[in-house]
Amino acid sequence: MKAKKVEKALNEAVPLQYPKKIHRAMRYSLLAGGKRVRPVLCLASCELVGGNQSLAIPTACAVEMIHTMSLIHDDLPCMDNDDLRRGKPTNHKAFGEETAILAGDALLSLAFEHIAAKTTKVVSPERVVRAIAELGSAVGSSGLVAGQIVDILSEGKEVTLEELEYIHVHKTAKLLEASVVCGAIIGGGNEGEVERMRKYARCIGLLFQVVDDILDVTKSSEELGKTAGKDLASDKATYPKLMGIEGARNFAAELVAQAIEELAHFDAARAAPLYCLANYIAHRQT
Amino acid sequence: MKAKKVEKALNEAVPLQYPKKIHRAMRYSLLAGGKRVRPVLCLASCELVGGNQSLAIPTACAVEMIHTMSLIHDDLPCMDNDDLRRGKPTNHKAFGEETAILAGDALLSLAFEHIAAKTTKVVSPERVVRAIAELGSAVGSSGLVAGQIVDILSEGKEVTLEELEYIHVHKTAKLLEASVVCGAIIGGGNEGEVERMRKYARCIGLLFQVVDDILDVTKSSEELGKTAGKDLASDKATYPKLMGIEGARNFAAELVAQAIEELAHFDAARAAPLYCLANYIAHRQT
Repeated sequence: MKAKKVEKALNEAVPLQYPKKIHRAMRYSLLAGGKRVRPVLCLASCELVGGNQSLAIPTACAVEMIHTMSLIHDDLPCMDNDDLRRGKPTNHKAFGEETAILAGDALLSLAFEHIAAKTTKVVSPERVVRAIAELGSAVGSSGLVAGQIVDILSEGKEVTLEELEYIHVHKTAKLLEASVVCGAIIGGGNEGEVERMRKYARCIGLLFQVVDDILDVTKSSEELGKTAGKDLASDKATYPKLMGIEGARNFAAELVAQAIEELAHFDAARAAPLYCLANYIAHRQT
Repeated sequence: MKAKKVEKALNEAVPLQYPKKIHRAMRYSLLAGGKRVRPVLCLASCELVGGNQSLAIPTACAVEMIHTMSLIHDDLPCMDNDDLRRGKPTNHKAFGEETAILAGDALLSLAFEHIAAKTTKVVSPERVVRAIAELGSAVGSSGLVAGQIVDILSEGKEVTLEELEYIHVHKTAKLLEASVVCGAIIGGGNEGEVERMRKYARCIGLLFQVVDDILDVTKSSEELGKTAGKDLASDKATYPKLMGIEGARNFAAELVAQAIEELAHFDAARAAPLYCLANYIAHRQT
C-alpha cells in the first residue's frame, strides 16, 4: 500500500507540462517502476515514531527523485556508460545526453522544492528545515557525489575494504539513512528515536549494497533488468571480490540481525513494516 | 563590500576536504571571480526591507552555487561545448566530464542544504522554507532547466520574440528574481515589499540577458573572457538578431527605467545599491 501511495504521489509531482521533452524524460526514469525502497522506508519511519504517513509523502517523493537523479547521471557515457536500467534503455539512450543531464538536475532541485512547498503546515517549519539539511548532506560532496567520485577514481586500482565501505556508505547507505531519518523527523520523533532510526538505516544501507554486489555476480542481465557482471568486468571493488560469496552472505546476515535489534525498542506492530523491509532487502532476487 | 563578504563566505562554504578532487572542481568554478551579481542583489534586497545583510549570507551563497552549477553543466560537450569561461578552461576541460557533472550536482544540492543548515535561528524557519521553495522553482523544470532545454531545442530553427523571451526569462531572469525575492523574504519583508522586489528583479533579469546578447556581438573573446560571437555562429536566437543592435539598446534603456521606478517606493538610501546595480548591469562592458 505504501509503494502504491508513493507511485501516485510521484505521478502527480511531475505532470507532463511544457517544456514536454524535459518532463517526459523526468517521468520516464522516475516512474519506471523501481521498488521504491527509500520512500517506503521514509513513510514507515514516519509512522514508527507516531506520525501519520501522509505527512511524509512529499519527503518520500523527494528521496525517490534524488535516487532517480543519481541513476540517470551515473548511467551517462562519461560515468558508468550503461545502456539498460530496469529493463529499459537508460535515460540518455532514450532522450539524449543533454536532456538526461538536465532531467537529473531538475529532479534534484525539485526534490528540495517539493519538501519545502508541499509538506503540510501541520509539520512545524523547523522540522521541514531539518529534513532538508539532512537530505542535502546525503546527496552532495559528503554524500552520493563523494561516493561516486571515489568509485570513479578507484576503478582499475586495488581497493581496500575500508575504501570499499566508504564508496558504498556514500553511494547507497547515506540516502537510505536520510530517507529513514527524514521520515522520523517529519513524523515528530524525539532525538533518541531519530538516532535509533539512523542506526537501523546504517545497517540496512550497507546490507543493500552487499546484496546488490552478490546479485551482480550470481544473476543474469535478463533476471536483473540491467547489465550483470559489470562490476567484475569493469574491475570495480565489490564485497564478493573481497570476502568471497560466502563471506559476503555471512556479512549480510549479521547486518540484518543488527538492524532488527534496533527495532526491538519500538512498538512491535508499528515496527513490522521495517522488520519486513530488512528481510526483503536481505533476500531480494533482483 | 557586499561582493567581498560573499567571496569570503563562498570560500568557507566549500572547504578543500576529502574527496579532494570533487571539492577542487567545485571551488575552481565557484571561486573563479565572477561578478557576484546575484548574491549582491540578494544581500541588497535583504537590507532594503530592513533586514541585516548577514541574515541572507547563506542564501546569497546558495544562489551563486546554483548559478555556478548551471554554467558548469551548460558548458559540457553535449550542451554548449564551451572551452573557455571567465578566461579559464571550463570545468570539464580542467577536471574531466564526469567530475564536472558531479561538481554541478554537488553545488546544486549544497545550495539548498546551506540555506537550511546555515541560516541563523533569528530568521523564522517558516521564512527559510519559503525561500527554499522559491529558489527551487527558479532552478528546476519550470526555471533554469526549462530555459536550457527550450534553448537547445530551438537551435538551428527560426525563433519568435515570444520564444526568445521564454528562454531568457527561464535561463537568466528567474534566478535573478529568486535572488532578490529570497533576500526580501529572509530580510523580513512583507507581501507587498516582496512582490515589488519581484517586479524590479524581472526587469533586471531581462536587462541582464539583453546586455549579454549585445556584448556577444560587439566584443572580442579576449575582452569577454569567453568565446565571443558564439550565439551568432551557433544560430542561437538573440535580441540584436531580432531587434537590431539599436533596437536592443533601446529595449535595455526601457528596462532600466522600469526597474528604477519600482525602487522609488522604498527608502532612498537603502535603495541606492539596487539603483546602482541596475545601472551597472545596463552599462557593463564584459
